[in-house]
Amino acid sequence: MDVKEKSLKLHEDLSGKIEVVSKKEVKTSEDLSLLYTPGVAEPCVKIHENEDNVYKYTAKKNLVGVVSDGSAVLGLGDIGAKASIPVMEGKAILFKEFGDVDAFPICIDSTDVEDIVKTVKLISPVFGGINLEDISAPRCVEVEERLKDELDIPVFHDDQHGTAIVVGAGIINSLKIVKKDIDKIKIVVNGDGSAGYAITKMLINLGAKNVIVCGINGVVKEDKDNNYVQKELSKITNPNKEEGTLKDVIKNADVFIGVSKGNLVDKEMVESMNGDAVIFAMANPTPEIMPDVAKSGGARVVGTGRSDFENQVNNVLAFPGIFRGALDAYATKISEGMKVAATHAIANFIKEEDLNEHNILPSALDKDVASVVAKAVYDEAVKENIVKNIK
Amino acid sequence: MDVKEKSLKLHEDLSGKIEVVSKKEVKTSEDLSLLYTPGVAEPCVKIHENEDNVYKYTAKKNLVGVVSDGSAVLGLGDIGAKASIPVMEGKAILFKEFGDVDAFPICIDSTDVEDIVKTVKLISPVFGGINLEDISAPRCVEVEERLKDELDIPVFHDDQHGTAIVVGAGIINSLKIVKKDIDKIKIVVNGDGSAGYAITKMLINLGAKNVIVCGINGVVKEDKDNNYVQKELSKITNPNKEEGTLKDVIKNADVFIGVSKGNLVDKEMVESMNGDAVIFAMANPTPEIMPDVAKSGGARVVGTGRSDFENQVNNVLAFPGIFRGALDAYATKISEGMKVAATHAIANFIKEEDLNEHNILPSALDKDVASVVAKAVYDEAVKENIVKNIK
Repeated sequence: MDVKEKSLKLHEDLSGKIEVVSKKEVKTSEDLSLLYTPGVAEPCVKIHENEDNVYKYTAKKNLVGVVSDGSAVLGLGDIGAKASIPVMEGKAILFKEFGDVDAFPICIDSTDVEDIVKTVKLISPVFGGINLEDISAPRCVEVEERLKDELDIPVFHDDQHGTAIVVGAGIINSLKIVKKDIDKIKIVVNGDGSAGYAITKMLINLGAKNVIVCGINGVVKEDKDNNYVQKELSKITNPNKEEGTLKDVIKNADVFIGVSKGNLVDKEMVESMNGDAVIFAMANPTPEIMPDVAKSGGARVVGTGRSDFENQVNNVLAFPGIFRGALDAYATKISEGMKVAATHAIANFIKEEDLNEHNILPSALDKDVASVVAKAVYDEAVKENIVKNIK
Repeated sequence: MDVKEKSLKLHEDLSGKIEVVSKKEVKTSEDLSLLYTPGVAEPCVKIHENEDNVYKYTAKKNLVGVVSDGSAVLGLGDIGAKASIPVMEGKAILFKEFGDVDAFPICIDSTDVEDIVKTVKLISPVFGGINLEDISAPRCVEVEERLKDELDIPVFHDDQHGTAIVVGAGIINSLKIVKKDIDKIKIVVNGDGSAGYAITKMLINLGAKNVIVCGINGVVKEDKDNNYVQKELSKITNPNKEEGTLKDVIKNADVFIGVSKGNLVDKEMVESMNGDAVIFAMANPTPEIMPDVAKSGGARVVGTGRSDFENQVNNVLAFPGIFRGALDAYATKISEGMKVAATHAIANFIKEEDLNEHNILPSALDKDVASVVAKAVYDEAVKENIVKNIK
């Protein structure tokens, strides 16, 4: 059986990947009276008196809603809420297995921004955090901004920031290998959707001064037809006003980051880059350029989204630890500083003596990464004082 | 420590009663690729092709949303969504422990009917059923009616129907003891909210011909100021047009059922009832009349909602089995017939030789009840052909 058949069979055998279990067995009449009526009235009363007690007496402290409208699922596009459930359940089990975070899929049967925002707000009481997932751009940016403003719990669009954090960590370590400073290099990002936007903001937060972003029509620049993301990107990128297509601007670049489509970059384009080029070709399943081709064009470090090549960029390195840290700190949001702290924590997870062009990021299966990320995120939240004072 | 202190401590120690766990560990790179990307795309595609496949590849088949707006929580009233969470988590663990049903609390931060209906509809893709809980009357009736019409999964307001089913079972067995026929007796229900409404409909479904319902202003009858529930009740009750207060109409009644407030019935009122009176005094924690007082007034069978008296009427006898059966059958709703089938299943659980005035209902802790109820509900759903044809 191939992966597809195996996965189908496994999903059918499991009949759902998540299970909601009780932390305590209900066997005796005392169990019933303490866990349910009449005893349960008491924590209700305490929460009614002081709503912060919801963190003390309920699962909220450790519970994340994995929210999607199914409009941009993997490479499948807008397949709808029901068809997105296997991905959201998958996310939920990764949260539990890697971060000991309880996560539950909220698959919303509407792609209307108002509907999504309102629904998430109305069901937010039980959740300590919201992970947005697989919502198409540019709506995802608006949904996230709105929810960040209107909720007092962390809201995090993983396709944007999870990707940006892991890419950022990979870039930090790649630049150590090629001995270049991030503020002196030229970086080209191909993809002007929400992931490209978040990666660009992260690179700038890490010190990059010259990032150029391309979309299907070439370099993103001021244009009356720009959507929200393109508008924001045109303000913060391309300081030297370069023009043209990806093929034009990739010349003399030091770093290429693709969050676009397979096979958009060829060997000649890599050859036109500066020496010791760093390439992150993250289109899935087919990267923008295959690693062997990129290497033959002179690239020194190559990362992809795939587990069968070296240097896999996998969000699982980020989101479990980020929410673990944010929940533990009772953070009210996930700030830029917390994202940067997570980025450095992931980069520094690779010890100096282990760092080389074949090993720039921790293994996606290494369950020790999350606690290191969590600590960095927790400390930063406390430092920035964006935490609730829960006793 | 008393129950209140013990319950608080237990809730704090547990830090939430539910946990969302993975049915399969994620350890190897193959686990990741089958449970998450790239393998997870395949069940998504299958569901996108045929949405019935959502029952095959996701947790939907076994997942119930426990929905409340926190407006009528236990005896506490309108304490809001957050303060209701301990009850909804409690319900969720009872679902799991008694029915092996996965249940998740959806606590909605709005008491507006439109908001509740729309929210539940929008997040319904992941759920195989909806259990409504602790929503105040008469809105709860409207919310349930709307959701039953607009969703193709079972919707069940437990405070109405769970109570009605267990009361119905208790009445069936009580009448066996006192050797009276349900179609020949006079039954007084005190409480014209949603529970009283559901109990009345259940009694009529079981064959009762003469049910009189009282509210705080006495007998419910046609009145221009009636709310929805009172309007419906006035159509189906009080065939002999009796008038007055509870004290008036309880005279010569054979059965009294209270879903109202403590201490509303005294010994003299019981004495005015027919011989071998049956009394279900379910106000919590203080019943409409204490069992010893009712007995001293001549009552033969007395039930309450309390676990420290005999004949406890506890919804946990009903809801786990009802959803277990409905989910297993892929039922599209929970029909009157399915509720009646559950009622008889609970009544018949007490064998003839064990049936006496001290033992009319199974113990709330007896985990064998749910499977018997489930089978009856399943069979009835199939018989009525209100099931989805899922392969």
